[in-house]
Amino acid sequence: MAESWSFLDAFEPNFRPLVVIELAKDTKEETIEWFTRRIVDKKANGGAQLLVKPLVTEDGDETIYLVGASHLRLLLGAEAVGLVKECNDNSMRTFTYSSRKTFKDFADDNHNFLTMAECQYIIKHELENLRAKDEKMIPGYPQAKLYPGKSIVRRLLTSGILVQIFPLHDREELKKLRHSWYGRVKVGYQPLDEIRCYFGETIAIYFGFLEYFTFALIPMAVIGIPYYVFAWEDYDKYVMFATFNLLWSTVILEVWKRICAIMTYRWGTLLMKRQFEEPRPGFHGVLGINAVTGREEPVYSSIKRQLRIYLVSLPFVCLCLYFSLYVMMIYFDLEEWALDYHEENKSNFSSLMLFVPSIIYAVVIEVMNRIYRYAAEFLTSWENHRLESSYQNHLVLKVLVFNFLNCFASLFYIAFVLFDMKLLRQSLATLLITSQILNQFAESLLPYWLQKRQKKRMKKHMCSLKTDVDLSLVEQVNMEKEMGTYFGTFDDYLELFLQFGYVSLFSCVYPLAAVFAVLNNFTEIYSDALKMCRVYKRPFAEPTANIGVWQLAFETMSVISVVTNCVLIGMSPQVNALFPDSKVELVLTVALVEHLLLAIKFIMAFVIPDKPRDIQIKLAKLEFESLEALKQQ
Amino acid sequence: MAESWSFLDAFEPNFRPLVVIELAKDTKEETIEWFTRRIVDKKANGGAQLLVKPLVTEDGDETIYLVGASHLRLLLGAEAVGLVKECNDNSMRTFTYSSRKTFKDFADDNHNFLTMAECQYIIKHELENLRAKDEKMIPGYPQAKLYPGKSIVRRLLTSGILVQIFPLHDREELKKLRHSWYGRVKVGYQPLDEIRCYFGETIAIYFGFLEYFTFALIPMAVIGIPYYVFAWEDYDKYVMFATFNLLWSTVILEVWKRICAIMTYRWGTLLMKRQFEEPRPGFHGVLGINAVTGREEPVYSSIKRQLRIYLVSLPFVCLCLYFSLYVMMIYFDLEEWALDYHEENKSNFSSLMLFVPSIIYAVVIEVMNRIYRYAAEFLTSWENHRLESSYQNHLVLKVLVFNFLNCFASLFYIAFVLFDMKLLRQSLATLLITSQILNQFAESLLPYWLQKRQKKRMKKHMCSLKTDVDLSLVEQVNMEKEMGTYFGTFDDYLELFLQFGYVSLFSCVYPLAAVFAVLNNFTEIYSDALKMCRVYKRPFAEPTANIGVWQLAFETMSVISVVTNCVLIGMSPQVNALFPDSKVELVLTVALVEHLLLAIKFIMAFVIPDKPRDIQIKLAKLEFESLEALKQQ
Repeated sequence: MAESWSFLDAFEPNFRPLVVIELAKDTKEETIEWFTRRIVDKKANGGAQLLVKPLVTEDGDETIYLVGASHLRLLLGAEAVGLVKECNDNSMRTFTYSSRKTFKDFADDNHNFLTMAECQYIIKHELENLRAKDEKMIPGYPQAKLYPGKSIVRRLLTSGILVQIFPLHDREELKKLRHSWYGRVKVGYQPLDEIRCYFGETIAIYFGFLEYFTFALIPMAVIGIPYYVFAWEDYDKYVMFATFNLLWSTVILEVWKRICAIMTYRWGTLLMKRQFEEPRPGFHGVLGINAVTGREEPVYSSIKRQLRIYLVSLPFVCLCLYFSLYVMMIYFDLEEWALDYHEENKSNFSSLMLFVPSIIYAVVIEVMNRIYRYAAEFLTSWENHRLESSYQNHLVLKVLVFNFLNCFASLFYIAFVLFDMKLLRQSLATLLITSQILNQFAESLLPYWLQKRQKKRMKKHMCSLKTDVDLSLVEQVNMEKEMGTYFGTFDDYLELFLQFGYVSLFSCVYPLAAVFAVLNNFTEIYSDALKMCRVYKRPFAEPTANIGVWQLAFETMSVISVVTNCVLIGMSPQVNALFPDSKVELVLTVALVEHLLLAIKFIMAFVIPDKPRDIQIKLAKLEFESLEALKQQ
Repeated sequence: MAESWSFLDAFEPNFRPLVVIELAKDTKEETIEWFTRRIVDKKANGGAQLLVKPLVTEDGDETIYLVGASHLRLLLGAEAVGLVKECNDNSMRTFTYSSRKTFKDFADDNHNFLTMAECQYIIKHELENLRAKDEKMIPGYPQAKLYPGKSIVRRLLTSGILVQIFPLHDREELKKLRHSWYGRVKVGYQPLDEIRCYFGETIAIYFGFLEYFTFALIPMAVIGIPYYVFAWEDYDKYVMFATFNLLWSTVILEVWKRICAIMTYRWGTLLMKRQFEEPRPGFHGVLGINAVTGREEPVYSSIKRQLRIYLVSLPFVCLCLYFSLYVMMIYFDLEEWALDYHEENKSNFSSLMLFVPSIIYAVVIEVMNRIYRYAAEFLTSWENHRLESSYQNHLVLKVLVFNFLNCFASLFYIAFVLFDMKLLRQSLATLLITSQILNQFAESLLPYWLQKRQKKRMKKHMCSLKTDVDLSLVEQVNMEKEMGTYFGTFDDYLELFLQFGYVSLFSCVYPLAAVFAVLNNFTEIYSDALKMCRVYKRPFAEPTANIGVWQLAFETMSVISVVTNCVLIGMSPQVNALFPDSKVELVLTVALVEHLLLAIKFIMAFVIPDKPRDIQIKLAKLEFESLEALKQQ
C-alpha cells in the first residue's frame, strides 16, 4: 500500500507525481485507507492500478496525496480513453497497446510519447471510472451512499470528503511555454501546439479561435479606420462597409471550421470516438435501472425536468429579461437628466457628466450579467440534467439570451425606437470600451494581483526566498492548491461572442468598433495567457474537436446582424433621399436586399465545405481502412 | 459449370431463381463461359460463389441466365452487406453468421429468414462486387478494358454485352401484396411492411411519405373547404389560415423525420452502416491511384469537373431559366389576347377560350420539364461525378431549380408584378389540376395500357391462355424482361415537391389547393401502386433510412412559402384598410411578422427532436453495447 513520501525522495525515478488529491482535514483513517487501496488495486479487482503516495507537509497531516502511474499503465490507459496519435506513415490512428510500435516516436524507454497533459487526463479518467462494487456506502461515512457502478470519486466530491483533484504544473515546461507564448517581445502566432501539449485541446482551441478571430477582424478594422479619419458619412460607403462585413462574417465563421478541422486532425481529436457519457456529478434521483446501460443508477423523470424547465426556469428568465429592460429605461431617464443638466450648466464638468450614465450603465450591465450567471447556474443545476453536455447547453442558452438582451437592448432601443444615430454611436463606443476594460481587469489583472500578494505572504511564511523553479515539491503543491480554479472557457467565449455582437450588429454606424476589438483581443491574448500560466491551477486537459455550441451562437449573431444592418442602412438619411416620393418603395427595397443577403449567406454556408479536401480524403481513407478490416474479420 | 436448365425442372428444390441476367444476342461463347465461371467460382478464387443456369427459350439461344444462391451463401452475403435484423430480445442488430441463432425466426431450415427482396439485393451486391483480378480485358472483347479491382458487371454493362440485370417477381407474393395494397375496396393504411418486404426500403419509404403527406394535408384541406363554400374573404380568416399553414408545414416535416425513424428502425436500415461508395458505372478517367483506397482506378481531376460545372452547366441552366421566363411572357401575351377576344365576343366559346392559355401553358411547362430533365441528366453525366450520390445531388439541384421556376414563375409574376389575385387563383387552379391530370396519365395509365396491349400480343404469339399465376418460368422471364424499367423515386418525389409548392406558396389565396392535392394523392397512391406491381420490372431493393435530399428541398420550400404568404396577406385590401394612413407602417408590420414566423419556424425545427425518445434510447443502447464490447477486447 501507499508508502510514506518524504521530502527528499521527490525525484525518485519510478514515481512521477502527476495529479494531486486533497482530502478534507478530518477525513477518517479507514476512508483514506479504503480509497488509496482502491486506487492502487489491480484492474481485475476493480481498482485503478495507479500509484499513490501521501505528501507529508510540515503540519504532519496526511491530507494530500500524489497520484502517478507506471509507463505501461499510462499506455494502457491511453488505449482505454481512445487517444489518437500519429503513426510512422504520418497518418493519425487510435492508439492501441498492441500496435504501439507503429506509432511515431514510440519507444519502450521514451516516456515522452504521451504528453504530461495526456497522462494527467488518463489518470483523471481512470480515477473517475473507479466504481463501487458491493460497497453500500463510503467506509466511515454511512450517509455517503454507494451502489454498484457509482463513481467513487464523484461521491467523495459531492459528500465533501474529497476537496479537490488537480493536475500538477510542470515548472520547467511552463517556463518554456511562457517564454514562447508571451515572454518574447517578438510579435507572431501563438505556439498553439505547445499550448495544446501543456493545457489540452479545449484551451488550445480557445486560444486558436481568439487568435483567428482577431486576425479575421483586422480587414474590418483596416476598412473601418478611414471612415473615422475622413469622417465619411456617404451612404454608399456605409452600404459597402456593411455588405463587406456581412459576407465577411459568414466567410470567417465557415473558414474557422476548416482551420479547426486542420488543427484537431493534427492533434488527433477530430478522429477521437465519443465516449459513453456518464451522469454528471451533481445528478441525483431515485435508484433505478438506466434504460440504455441496464445498470443501476439514479433515475430522474424527464417529465419532472421538463416541468422545472418550463414552469420555473423559463418564467424566471423572462422575469430577468423584463428586469433588464426596466434597468435600461432607468438608464435612459438618467441619460436625459444628464443632458438637461448639461444644457443648464454648460461647464466642463457637465459635459463630462454626459458620459456618466453610459459608464454607470455599462458597469451595471456587467454586474447584472455576473449575478444572473450564478442564478442561471443554480437553476440549471436544479433542473437536474443527467448529462454534462445537456447541462452545458441549457446553461449556455440561458446565459446567452440574457447577456444578449442585457448588452444590446439599449442599443436596439436607441437605434430602432429613438432613431438617434449619434447617441447610438456614443453608447456603442462607451459600452464596448467600458466592458472591455472591466473584463480585462476582472478576469486577469485582479486575480493576478491577488495571487501575487498571497504568494508573497506565503513565501514570507515559509521563510524561503528561492526562485520559482527551485521550489520543492511540497512547496509547489502547497502553492498550487491555493490557486484559483479555472472554470473552463465559457466566460472567455461569452466575452468574444458579445464583442462580435458589438462589432457586427451595428457595424455600419460605428466602423471603429472592429479597431477596438482588435486592440482588445491582442491584449486579451496576453492577459488570458498570463491567467492560464500564473493565476490559475493547471486545468485538466479536455479533448475536443470544435468550439461546440459557440459556433451556432456566432452564426446566429451573424444572421441577426444582417437584419439590423439592413434596417440601419434603410434608415440613413442618404438612402431616404434616394426615395424622395415613396417610403414604401424604400422599405420594400431594403426588405428585398435583406432577403437576398440572407439567401447568399445560407448558400455560402452550404457551399463552403466544413473540412478542407485533404482532411476529407484522410478521413475517408481511415473509414475505408476500418471497413476493409471489418470485412477481413 | 452452368448446367442446362430445361423447361420442366423450374421447380428443382435446390435452385430458386432470383435474378435474371440478359446478355446481348451475339455475345461470344468464351465471354459467356468466362463470366458464368466467375459467378460460380469460390470466393477464395475471386468468384461470387453463386448459382447460375441458362434459360433455354424456344428460339434456342442461351442469352438469358438465372442466378440464385444456396441458403448458406445468402446468409454470408447478408453479413457482407451488413443487413440489420431483429433479435430474439426484440432489439435490432447487424446480422452475422456466427450469431445467427440469436435472431428472431432464424432456423437452419427456414428459408424465409431473408425476404426475397433481401436475397436479390445480396445477389446484386455480390455480382457488382465481382472484380477483375489479372484480366486486362473482357475475354472476346479486347476493346472492353479491365484493370485489377474493376467491377466486371459494370464493364459488361457499359460495353453493351450485358443488356440488363433484374430481379424476378414472385407471382404468389405479388398477388397477395396487390390484394392487400389496392385490391380491396376497404380504405385504410397501406401495408408498408409488406411493400418493404417486396420492393425494399426506398420504395416503401416513398409510399410511406406519400401516405403521410396525404394525411398531413387533410387538416389543411378541411380548413380550406369552408373558405370556398362560404366564399370567405375576410382578411383575419385568411391570416389565420396562412399562419396555421406555415406552422403546420413545419410541424409535418419535423414529425415526418420521427415517423421515418420509427419505420426504418423497425426495418433495420436506420442502423445500417454506410458502405464504402465505389465509382458510379458511367465514371471514366485516366487510370491512376485513388487517394482514399490506394487502389488503381480511373481518376478525374476535380478542377476539370468544377470547370465543367461552373463554365458549362451553370450557364446552360441559366439560359434554360431565361428561356422558361420567355415562354412565360408569351403565355401572358396569349392570356391578354384571350381576354380581348372574350371582351369582343362575349360568347360561351370565348369564355371557354379564357382557360385555353392556362391549359396550353400547363402542358408546355410539363413538356419543358421533361425535355430539360434529359438535358440535365446528360450534363450531370458529362460532369463525370465519381460517386452516384454526388451525381444525384447535382442532378436534383439542376432539376429542382428549373422545375421550381418553370412551375411557379408565372404565379410569382401574377402575384407580385400584376397584383391580380383573381388571375392568380385561376392560374393556380388550372396549373395544379392540369399538371395532376397529365402526371397521372403519363406516369401510370399510359404505360399500363401500353403494357396490357403488349402482353395481349405476346400471349397471342405464345398461343397460350393461362392465367397470370400459371405462367411458366420461361414465359414469366420473357414477359418481365420486356417490361419497362422503374428509374427510381426521383419523379415521384418531384411531383410531390411541386404539389407542396402549389399548396403552400399561395395557400392564403387559394385554400382549395390542399383539397385537390389530397384528392390527387389518394388516386396517386393507387396509380403508383399499380405502376409498381403491373407496369414495371421489379426493381432491386435499395436499403435507405430517409428521403435524403428531398427533406431539405421540402424544408426550403416551406421557408419560401412563409415569405410569399406574408407578402400576399400584406397586399390584401383588407389588411391595407387597417393601415389607411401609412403604407410604410403596413410594410414594416408585415416584415416584422414574417421575421417572427421564420424565427418560430427555425426554433420549432430545432426544438422538435428528429427521433422519438424510445428510438433514441434504443440507438444509445446499441452504441453503449458496442463501446462495451470494444473495451472487453
